Amino acid sequence: MQSQVHGGDIYSGNYTMDFSTSISPIGVPEGVRQAYLDAVSTIQQYPDVRCRKLKAALSESLSIPADWIICSGGAGELIHAVAFAAKPNKALLIAPSFSEYEQALRLSGCCDIHFYECTEENGFLIESDILDQITEDLDLFFLCNPNNPTGVLVPSELMPEIVEKCRRNHVRLVLDECYVRLLRQPKQVTMLRHLEGNDWLFIIDAFTKLYAMPGLRLGYGMTSDRPFLDKVRSCLQPWNVSGPAQACGVAALKDTEYVRKARVTIREEMTYLRETFDRIGITWYGSGVNFMFFRGPEDLFDRCAKEGILIRDCSNYRGLGPGFFRVACRTRRENEKLCGILAGIYAEEDHRLRKQS
Amino acid sequence: MQSQVHGGDIYSGNYTMDFSTSISPIGVPEGVRQAYLDAVSTIQQYPDVRCRKLKAALSESLSIPADWIICSGGAGELIHAVAFAAKPNKALLIAPSFSEYEQALRLSGCCDIHFYECTEENGFLIESDILDQITEDLDLFFLCNPNNPTGVLVPSELMPEIVEKCRRNHVRLVLDECYVRLLRQPKQVTMLRHLEGNDWLFIIDAFTKLYAMPGLRLGYGMTSDRPFLDKVRSCLQPWNVSGPAQACGVAALKDTEYVRKARVTIREEMTYLRETFDRIGITWYGSGVNFMFFRGPEDLFDRCAKEGILIRDCSNYRGLGPGFFRVACRTRRENEKLCGILAGIYAEEDHRLRKQS
Repeated sequence: MQSQVHGGDIYSGNYTMDFSTSISPIGVPEGVRQAYLDAVSTIQQYPDVRCRKLKAALSESLSIPADWIICSGGAGELIHAVAFAAKPNKALLIAPSFSEYEQALRLSGCCDIHFYECTEENGFLIESDILDQITEDLDLFFLCNPNNPTGVLVPSELMPEIVEKCRRNHVRLVLDECYVRLLRQPKQVTMLRHLEGNDWLFIIDAFTKLYAMPGLRLGYGMTSDRPFLDKVRSCLQPWNVSGPAQACGVAALKDTEYVRKARVTIREEMTYLRETFDRIGITWYGSGVNFMFFRGPEDLFDRCAKEGILIRDCSNYRGLGPGFFRVACRTRRENEKLCGILAGIYAEEDHRLRKQS
Repeated sequence: MQSQVHGGDIYSGNYTMDFSTSISPIGVPEGVRQAYLDAVSTIQQYPDVRCRKLKAALSESLSIPADWIICSGGAGELIHAVAFAAKPNKALLIAPSFSEYEQALRLSGCCDIHFYECTEENGFLIESDILDQITEDLDLFFLCNPNNPTGVLVPSELMPEIVEKCRRNHVRLVLDECYVRLLRQPKQVTMLRHLEGNDWLFIIDAFTKLYAMPGLRLGYGMTSDRPFLDKVRSCLQPWNVSGPAQACGVAALKDTEYVRKARVTIREEMTYLRETFDRIGITWYGSGVNFMFFRGPEDLFDRCAKEGILIRDCSNYRGLGPGFFRVACRTRRENEKLCGILAGIYAEEDHRLRKQS
């Protein structure tokens, strides 16, 4: 068994539970399932290249103009398109963070990539010294808040300062907020209100995590810089969002009750995981959203896989190494199963270490 | 009403019939509809990044190794990825042809793009003088056979010569065969058998046209050059093919009877359209596949739109101008309706011209 570049590869082994992808623990909203089934008739039509209905629904839901929005086949596609549209010479990234930012930058021809390193000693925090790196010669900054895979949030007073310094220095800030709407108080974290009058902010979000629909590929980007949005559009294939994905996106946005329920479950299950990890003696960081980022024995991925459980081995993230892992919170039954297995493994480890010493 | 960059934009007006997209006239195979409905459970999983089942099914169906295949969210996505992976300095295109080739090349930074021009005087034929343009300094050649929008096929004796000259001169030939499997004798046209031992041939195909499933976004590429395939892979987002699309692709490949039926219908309906166009007095070209490419009054798009009929205005193709149009063959009932409207418009035109002279 081998860990993949990304999570979610349930196809490589016999897994009964997938903790490797940090999606909503309560499954797809019923309205989305129904919209998917109803969309069977859209298979034989080219999808709307302009995603008109979906953009109108997003515009209403987010209270921003529809022509500030671009839709995509998942956030990943948008990350690549933004890098190609911006063609930055000098870019700033966080390490560790989602690997597609660096991948997209390298493909776009960006050679001068700088990294702000979050260290274990410092709890993987992003601190105010990040502002020193936002200088006039910087072209683009990919920032994921809350960060993946650490689950750490940028301090709430620092985030607007980052937005403002990027604006003043004409640095394109590409802010990945794919996890924000899973938070208890998303409005205190999102920088949506800063879009107006700020051409340099580009926010990425997706339906993937919040509505547990990664199979359909649906994300979106937002900026008040319309000419830049046109450039991003030109870097995407015309029919990048499938018909079913567009229909399901519209249905998802109608289900505000689902979002409330998901947030309650996440709060309860994350409390359970934090407390149980502490009891087992697992060193964890962040945990601000719906996943735990933690230290473990280097072969933990394989040992969980043997039990049919897929977790995210984070050793391939820049700035990390062997021994870092991520698990999403799932239902209580699944979380209990995971914790039971982890407790067994950690007890074995303790035993082994005591024998060695 | 306004024509779009591409066909299929039924969302801009009140259309009752769509002749603008050249997909199979007999609709989605029943097995694909069922596979789509069954795939509702895949919504909440990340799709297999490696498309293992789909590649295995394609490998069996096409008799090529699975590791010569890459899957994509439609041919359009692949065209962009190939251009970025190849990063050609000098490229060759056909004019007129599918506009995404040029779009992808420009985005990839290719500045030196040459065009082999197919002219109306010459029936939009590609002739043996194309070989003179395949020289050592050329890096990449995008060729669509049968060509879109003209419907003209490269002469059968010329096609292997093009493949061979590209191989000898180390020119990456990206051959778009999206229409080949709609032909009566696809094996006489496809260059699939030339993939073996030829690193310079890359064939693109899609499920879109043959199985009338453009709404799902599913295409694939084939080459025996595995390192190049890895490069193309790195230019795509990891989960570029949705779960439902993968499941529907596997189901489509099982339905060989559907393909036979589609080909019979296309043959019959194209015969009907050719004969009726002749009777109306429409000047048409190509018509080798499932669509008619023809001359018409410059305002034909709007006049058809008023009748609720969407046709493809081809005036925005490089090498064409106002007065060129494309219509796909549909069912007999629809084709009769189209021809009735065209006959009326052409009779009016004749009357108008006679009055002027």
